[in-house]
Amino acid sequence: MLERAIIQQRGFRNVVEDGRVTGFQLQLRMPNYRGAAGSLIDGVEVDIDGETWNAEVPLWTLQGRTFTLDQLRASTGVRWQLDEPATVTVPKPGGLAAGVHQVAVAVYLRRPYFPPDMARSVFRAADAATIVPPSAPDGVRYGASLYSYSGDMYTSMSLEDAMADIADMGATGIEILGEGNIPGYPAPASAWIDEWHGLLEKYALTATNFGSWVDNTMWRDRDLTAEEGAAQLRLDLRLAHRLGFTSVRPKFGVVTGDLQPHPIWTEVVERSLKLAQELDIVICPEIHSPTPIKHPVTRGYLDFIERTGTRHFKLLIDTGIFQTAPVDDPHDGVEVKKGESRPAFLEPLAVPMSDLADILPHVHFIQAKFFEIDDDLRDLHVPWDDILTTLAEANWSGWLSSEYEGRREPYRGRAQVRRQHALLRNLQSRQ
Amino acid sequence: MLERAIIQQRGFRNVVEDGRVTGFQLQLRMPNYRGAAGSLIDGVEVDIDGETWNAEVPLWTLQGRTFTLDQLRASTGVRWQLDEPATVTVPKPGGLAAGVHQVAVAVYLRRPYFPPDMARSVFRAADAATIVPPSAPDGVRYGASLYSYSGDMYTSMSLEDAMADIADMGATGIEILGEGNIPGYPAPASAWIDEWHGLLEKYALTATNFGSWVDNTMWRDRDLTAEEGAAQLRLDLRLAHRLGFTSVRPKFGVVTGDLQPHPIWTEVVERSLKLAQELDIVICPEIHSPTPIKHPVTRGYLDFIERTGTRHFKLLIDTGIFQTAPVDDPHDGVEVKKGESRPAFLEPLAVPMSDLADILPHVHFIQAKFFEIDDDLRDLHVPWDDILTTLAEANWSGWLSSEYEGRREPYRGRAQVRRQHALLRNLQSRQ
Repeated sequence: MLERAIIQQRGFRNVVEDGRVTGFQLQLRMPNYRGAAGSLIDGVEVDIDGETWNAEVPLWTLQGRTFTLDQLRASTGVRWQLDEPATVTVPKPGGLAAGVHQVAVAVYLRRPYFPPDMARSVFRAADAATIVPPSAPDGVRYGASLYSYSGDMYTSMSLEDAMADIADMGATGIEILGEGNIPGYPAPASAWIDEWHGLLEKYALTATNFGSWVDNTMWRDRDLTAEEGAAQLRLDLRLAHRLGFTSVRPKFGVVTGDLQPHPIWTEVVERSLKLAQELDIVICPEIHSPTPIKHPVTRGYLDFIERTGTRHFKLLIDTGIFQTAPVDDPHDGVEVKKGESRPAFLEPLAVPMSDLADILPHVHFIQAKFFEIDDDLRDLHVPWDDILTTLAEANWSGWLSSEYEGRREPYRGRAQVRRQHALLRNLQSRQ
Repeated sequence: MLERAIIQQRGFRNVVEDGRVTGFQLQLRMPNYRGAAGSLIDGVEVDIDGETWNAEVPLWTLQGRTFTLDQLRASTGVRWQLDEPATVTVPKPGGLAAGVHQVAVAVYLRRPYFPPDMARSVFRAADAATIVPPSAPDGVRYGASLYSYSGDMYTSMSLEDAMADIADMGATGIEILGEGNIPGYPAPASAWIDEWHGLLEKYALTATNFGSWVDNTMWRDRDLTAEEGAAQLRLDLRLAHRLGFTSVRPKFGVVTGDLQPHPIWTEVVERSLKLAQELDIVICPEIHSPTPIKHPVTRGYLDFIERTGTRHFKLLIDTGIFQTAPVDDPHDGVEVKKGESRPAFLEPLAVPMSDLADILPHVHFIQAKFFEIDDDLRDLHVPWDDILTTLAEANWSGWLSSEYEGRREPYRGRAQVRRQHALLRNLQSRQ
């Protein structure tokens, strides 16, 4: 699927030729209702943050061929299809700065079926879009969770679109929700599994973490038994392994407001550890707001590691616990109670960095939870500079996997994840 | 693709059992970010225009199996997937009236990973949705043009989605834009052609009219020759034939404000008539606002029919010519000039019905152009009652093919086409 807006978020990038940045590119969806011969294209004006290039300047790449406007006007056999974006390349030595830009275009198309005085039609569009800088070769690895695209997945975004978006930012890891992103879960068709591996290869992505749920209240009249819970986790371990994942996060049902997992959790994990070892998958329970690091829940998981001596059970940190400001965006399925401003997990828990440093040796994976990054690449809630510094000081080199959880407006997750990657890489390059 | 809204427009219908209407159905997208076992579903309240059914009442159909809520709560092995809608059936003898209804739902899902006091989560959604009555067995045939879905196609709607939408309204004809809706145009892959025919069969649709363009100003420095124009039209005739279409509308480039086609048009058609006859395809130039029926352009086409005696060149009427009120919605690529309120083709031309009656014997196809139908099924611009009466009096039995051209907000075209079909069938049933 193409993005609905004429200016596509995906594909906005600087162009490097012979090691030098010579300009930038953006992808445009055909703004008319029909595709057209390239010769009917009559240029595109581009404006970035007030700097403009006139309609004759940008180069056009259509169906794998690149043209000046004059070449395109004289062309035959090349089309701007309704289902294929055009790539527009604008010369600008040094390119655009990493970060958010205000982009405006005016696309000119000649439409011979309109009266002559209207036949040269202009289609205008404007949007904010983000240039993501390349990542440093060392240190944390960058990925994204499909959770970020909730609402967009299966409505305006296919699995391949999500993978293309992640790769387009230069990220290399993909995290999925087993019960969300696998058609036919828990028994996907072999053809889908083949397609999954094909897409990983096509977009050079690594399968990182597989989200799993152990639903203790699966039935209303009785609790899930440890045996049933273990069956669920073992099913997900096997499925994750077939799909190439190296960790599985079981989200255990909880019994208290501070997310104490149902007591079956230890037995569920114990019954699954041998399989995890065989498959070399790390089981990672999630430390999630409102539960901090210094808390019996986290302590319980660390005790389990100590007691069993396993290397296949570690922690997953959701960076929502480091929130320094409250989040008041709505959260699907959560209604704020009378007398409360917001649910507890959206209050700023502000876990100190020293707590993170203490447990980092036991942290396998980080969900880079966030809610909003503004036009100046400032995160309004999560202190990324502190987090990246803490990770760098510990030489932590696991996955930082974007987990956007802000407003679920269409396309917002995609745009925000790009911003987060730009922000994180900017910070990383300064360390 | 599923529709973004939780309440899907497609699938809203009355339920007929043993010849009696026993209730209605609607389809819902999973409102949470993960799929879930059926046993975690805890009911759905439904409100239609203020009449409510409590959460225990509706039946659930998931993955081909139908459950009462209690059966679903106790179920195993059935899931509400993120990429599969649930069908909710509400008993209501007599069902819902044809037309637009205000639909609200509250979906309850148990989420064991939330604190116990929040674990039973409610997801609310509300939307207008349309019940389309069945069509009468005789008279005009109903279809829709993919033009109606401009902006949605390839962004939130695949070809199959469009076909499913058309079939879901009980329409049986599909009109496409050759240069818009055929990936790889003008040379689609054989696999795509096979898929096309497979989808026609799956959704029991007839390929009706194929939109073609003869772009006289294809290159800026010279006009298209008649030979080049004929090559274009012949290409489209052959492609339309391979796809099962029975008419081709060439949109000739025009040379005046009143849409006088470029003079090559006669030679273009003459050079293509023999092929049209061989393929049994009717070539239909379009009569489009601001050109009325009593006009030299229409006269020119009728003269051509008379002179050649052909049965493979007839008229296509765009119902925008019957507009009785101006349209002030924006039109992509058209900027209103200083001192003008709107472009000429959006002014009410109000062609009289007697003019239509006069030429109906020469009319092969009608594009049912419209812009807005309100919640009471009133078209704000086009007099459908008069048009249907005129067609019925002449026993005209061709295709009436929906062509929505109003505001291009996401999903609006789909919802409006459903309204148009409800409106037309209501009128038809009263005749």
